[in-house]
Amino acid sequence: MLIGYDGSSFHGFADQGDDVATVARSLRTTIGRVLGREPVITCAGRTDAGVHAWGQVVTFDAAVATVESIGLERLIRVVNRQLAPAVVARDVAIVDATFDARFSAKERRYRYSVLNAPTPDPFSAHIAWWVPDPLDVSAMSMAATDILGEHDFSSFCRRPRPDATLVRRVTAATWHDLGGGRLRFDVAANAFCHQMVRALTGQLVEIGRGRRRAASMAEVLAARDRQLAAPLAPPHGLCLWEVCY
Amino acid sequence: MLIGYDGSSFHGFADQGDDVATVARSLRTTIGRVLGREPVITCAGRTDAGVHAWGQVVTFDAAVATVESIGLERLIRVVNRQLAPAVVARDVAIVDATFDARFSAKERRYRYSVLNAPTPDPFSAHIAWWVPDPLDVSAMSMAATDILGEHDFSSFCRRPRPDATLVRRVTAATWHDLGGGRLRFDVAANAFCHQMVRALTGQLVEIGRGRRRAASMAEVLAARDRQLAAPLAPPHGLCLWEVCY
Repeated sequence: MLIGYDGSSFHGFADQGDDVATVARSLRTTIGRVLGREPVITCAGRTDAGVHAWGQVVTFDAAVATVESIGLERLIRVVNRQLAPAVVARDVAIVDATFDARFSAKERRYRYSVLNAPTPDPFSAHIAWWVPDPLDVSAMSMAATDILGEHDFSSFCRRPRPDATLVRRVTAATWHDLGGGRLRFDVAANAFCHQMVRALTGQLVEIGRGRRRAASMAEVLAARDRQLAAPLAPPHGLCLWEVCY
Repeated sequence: MLIGYDGSSFHGFADQGDDVATVARSLRTTIGRVLGREPVITCAGRTDAGVHAWGQVVTFDAAVATVESIGLERLIRVVNRQLAPAVVARDVAIVDATFDARFSAKERRYRYSVLNAPTPDPFSAHIAWWVPDPLDVSAMSMAATDILGEHDFSSFCRRPRPDATLVRRVTAATWHDLGGGRLRFDVAANAFCHQMVRALTGQLVEIGRGRRRAASMAEVLAARDRQLAAPLAPPHGLCLWEVCY
């Protein structure tokens, strides 16, 4: 199922049981009522609390006969009726049992939105990081190219286990100036480690503010030391935009 | 003071005393703390509960000496620090005592946003009316031209008093297709009567759905009978965009 959601309403995607409002819990209970049995929900990218998604992909097990008797269209309608606009179902398909939302994904694309204007904006405050200091977008764009290719992103990630690899292959990292102070950072990789996009954006915005040099991006990356990186950008500017299989 | 606000957070603009969350109350108490005395806040267009504004203009009385000693920049900063992002101060100026936000205004411009797509959008759900039925935008555009000029808008307004005139002069009424199902109705007039933009939008969307003919716009307008108009469009799609003096 292809879904979008406003992360403001949830304590992240990952299921934390019935007592915590998570995207996975909402889907599990809603889809569970239709299927007559609550499925385990697997997603392409486990977004943190406050992080949004437009192109999140989730898989869950169900008997094909059950799904066919319910109808795919009805499955979408029920999710939207129960959960929209906080969570919306955009599409759904029956896939082979070997397909897994997480492990079959070849590339993830994230967008980070910044409003670089003297006055905050009431209408996008929940989906864009308001940065009033003037930003040097060309310095940010130049520094962003330093993360392209395969690197050890230890400086920009929370390490889940001591032996976990933090090597990722970044295939795109581009700032777009949409006018009116609206900036968007599009970044794609085979996979992202935890808090990676927010850490990269935090570093790039510090460069844009002139608090760090553009060359600091490559230096911090090479150092493989999380202490050297700038503070994380806040979660509400981040959106999982698309997942490619 | 030029202000913007997210109407979702308020029971409308107009002050209803200290117990009701209104835009006027927020400004009165915040500006009052700076000035040392709570002013009466007058606005260009009293928006209803749920209606947004980007270009609302408010006036209030204050001793010029007091304002000059505080500084206009600081007045903006305090409002933004206390009230943003729900309410933002965009600009402020000292004006002549004869200037009044409401009575000096020559033209008001409103925007009504519609999302015409099969799936709702989590990110604009608070600022756009989601209409899943396919809309005929050219029929809506054609019908919109019928309200241009000076008319009695009795069919599209709540009459505040039996003897109130509902004659208004509409100077623009245009639908814009912004792509991705995003539609915007821009309408300008010397002044609007109560619920007029929502009533006009409601009627035009019924025409777009094919439930009423394009000619119904002129017919309902001429009838001066509120019972004949389509249901009101919801408040959250509406935004007071600009006021001209």
